[in-house]
Amino acid sequence: MREERYQKGIENLKNMNPDSYRALEKNLEDLAPEMARYVAEFAYGDIYSRPGLDLNTRELVTIASITTLGGADTQLKSHIHGALNVGCTPREIIEVIIQMAVYAGFPKALNGLYAAKEVFDERNENIEK
Amino acid sequence: MREERYQKGIENLKNMNPDSYRALEKNLEDLAPEMARYVAEFAYGDIYSRPGLDLNTRELVTIASITTLGGADTQLKSHIHGALNVGCTPREIIEVIIQMAVYAGFPKALNGLYAAKEVFDERNENIEK
Amino acid sequence: MREERYQKGIENLKNMNPDSYRALEKNLEDLAPEMARYVAEFAYGDIYSRPGLDLNTRELVTIASITTLGGADTQLKSHIHGALNVGCTPREIIEVIIQMAVYAGFPKALNGLYAAKEVFDERNENIEK
Amino acid sequence: MREERYQKGIENLKNMNPDSYRALEKNLEDLAPEMARYVAEFAYGDIYSRPGLDLNTRELVTIASITTLGGADTQLKSHIHGALNVGCTPREIIEVIIQMAVYAGFPKALNGLYAAKEVFDERNENIEK
Amino acid sequence: MREERYQKGIENLKNMNPDSYRALEKNLEDLAPEMARYVAEFAYGDIYSRPGLDLNTRELVTIASITTLGGADTQLKSHIHGALNVGCTPREIIEVIIQMAVYAGFPKALNGLYAAKEVFDERNENIEK
Amino acid sequence: MREERYQKGIENLKNMNPDSYRALEKNLEDLAPEMARYVAEFAYGDIYSRPGLDLNTRELVTIASITTLGGADTQLKSHIHGALNVGCTPREIIEVIIQMAVYAGFPKALNGLYAAKEVFDERNENIEK
Repeated sequence: MREERYQKGIENLKNMNPDSYRALEKNLEDLAPEMARYVAEFAYGDIYSRPGLDLNTRELVTIASITTLGGADTQLKSHIHGALNVGCTPREIIEVIIQMAVYAGFPKALNGLYAAKEVFDERNENIEK
Repeated sequence: MREERYQKGIENLKNMNPDSYRALEKNLEDLAPEMARYVAEFAYGDIYSRPGLDLNTRELVTIASITTLGGADTQLKSHIHGALNVGCTPREIIEVIIQMAVYAGFPKALNGLYAAKEVFDERNENIEK
Repeated sequence: MREERYQKGIENLKNMNPDSYRALEKNLEDLAPEMARYVAEFAYGDIYSRPGLDLNTRELVTIASITTLGGADTQLKSHIHGALNVGCTPREIIEVIIQMAVYAGFPKALNGLYAAKEVFDERNENIEK
Repeated sequence: MREERYQKGIENLKNMNPDSYRALEKNLEDLAPEMARYVAEFAYGDIYSRPGLDLNTRELVTIASITTLGGADTQLKSHIHGALNVGCTPREIIEVIIQMAVYAGFPKALNGLYAAKEVFDERNENIEK
Repeated sequence: MREERYQKGIENLKNMNPDSYRALEKNLEDLAPEMARYVAEFAYGDIYSRPGLDLNTRELVTIASITTLGGADTQLKSHIHGALNVGCTPREIIEVIIQMAVYAGFPKALNGLYAAKEVFDERNENIEK
Repeated sequence: MREERYQKGIENLKNMNPDSYRALEKNLEDLAPEMARYVAEFAYGDIYSRPGLDLNTRELVTIASITTLGGADTQLKSHIHGALNVGCTPREIIEVIIQMAVYAGFPKALNGLYAAKEVFDERNENIEK
């Protein structure tokens, strides 16, 4: 059921990233509210609720992917928040992004680190954790 | 010391992906043997030997990144081998690649799955594991 | 309902691209059968059944996107089949791909044209149509 | 003739996107004025004046391509203006960009929607149209 | 004049890459012969004939760009031929591609090197030159 | 030796781009200071100090690569500074970026030109040089 997938997605989002989702919903409300539903239903309802991989790892591979894409700072910062919210440490996040220098090149890894820095500063995260 | 980084990298490669590295070294030997050294020294000596993230997660975020890049099947398959060699399950690898549909789009996720299929078939991996 | 989205997707696929979907389902059956379901449910059930844009245009913008991605020949050819199946002419498809030279560069546009050529040859399409 | 292609391009630009071209020309005037000429001659003189595809569809496939590229907001917004100028509705533009979630991933589709929102707001476009 | 740009482009191609252009023309002749003309007119007539950068450097920056794109082996090999034809040494070409590891990541640089290897082998190029 | 590679890199950076490196080091100091070291050691110590290609050409191919990537303005501007610092002329830099229109498409070439404009304005560079 659509309703069920949506509820499962919203449930996940409540634990993972309530603020980013609220902002997304707000930004899209007059333009394409179904797009926010697809994020809840498909990304968080279908995919993040799959068994076989813990949420920490799911957020870290997402950070790897968005860092590799480049040019998607809003989404990268949203998932850095999400990773911290599900219990990833700043250290783990930094390690993932540094490693991207090997696969996606230094410019994208550096931009990923700057995005992480903004999120950590905003949340007063202790990087050594 | 260069020697030290190289030795550390080769040590890591012995556990992670000895066959792929041997193939890489062979392919590059008359052309650009230093490039094989950079892979050993920088990727495996500097980066994969950093503390703060276990090798399983390092291989999974690499798979996420190369799936997102697209068009790099040789390297993707090499890291799927590497992930299995360090103890990731086929299930975890599949989960990472499926999730890329959300961030990198379905074409790249599908191509990632086909690469995984080739590696699993070659190794007779049991996907349900 | 999941079932409803799936049925709608399969219905669309029957008209748009039954062969490619069957091939996709077959390729994924032992590996990740849910991925084939997501294609049916999300891509064809949710998105292609949205009002506001006809199927011809939907296939043409998909061809533009996959040509721009590059490195996804299987998916590009599948959607060139799809475009022809819903009534796009070879001419329209060629025009879209040529135009990609401006936005994605000549290498990607040329590779897109070669993919189109393979599909047209296979189907004996008259390019002037 | 160069002059002829240029005139044809400028003619097209007058109908499609006079403001964006004027801004482009201004930005490039001391730096690389020939680049503005190539835009007029090659993109608008050679490509957009080809028969076989109407201007509406040409603008929609361009929006698909630039959304897929990512990181090119100025050009994306310029072509959203262009699409509206040649008669595409806000609805059609939104549909194209939403569909990019399937092929280019959600981050790029979301950034495309935010760019569209800025243009629609600036022009007071009624999204339901 | 179109004719003039075309003649200039064909002249450049005769010195830079006659075989690749002939292959391109042949591949496109029934499909999109104008696309071959755009390559001659715009790429080789307009751009490669601009003063301010020698042809060697023009070919090397093209190799950098196509290596960075990835997934465009035909075009990359064509420009490696072109670079050799205008007098670049195999060494210079290898240096450019190795350097791409820093900016575009190792997978794309490695694929670039394998493309170069194929071209050098085919031409019996002495890599140390 | 690590120390030796680092010293060689810092030496290169002193001539090529001292200000950008200082800014990079500062931005990363609390977050990932090793990343700044990798830039010095791997990019500037290992790669830019290789024989076989002069620094001017190395900077121009880097500009080609980062323009092609897109979405990395900070790094692109840093290398435009670097290119000027090692003796490239504004003209050569503009030529490289214009040429990217052919391979990476107009949107990325235009964004590259706007980045160049900012750097030239800041340094009061005479573009005709």
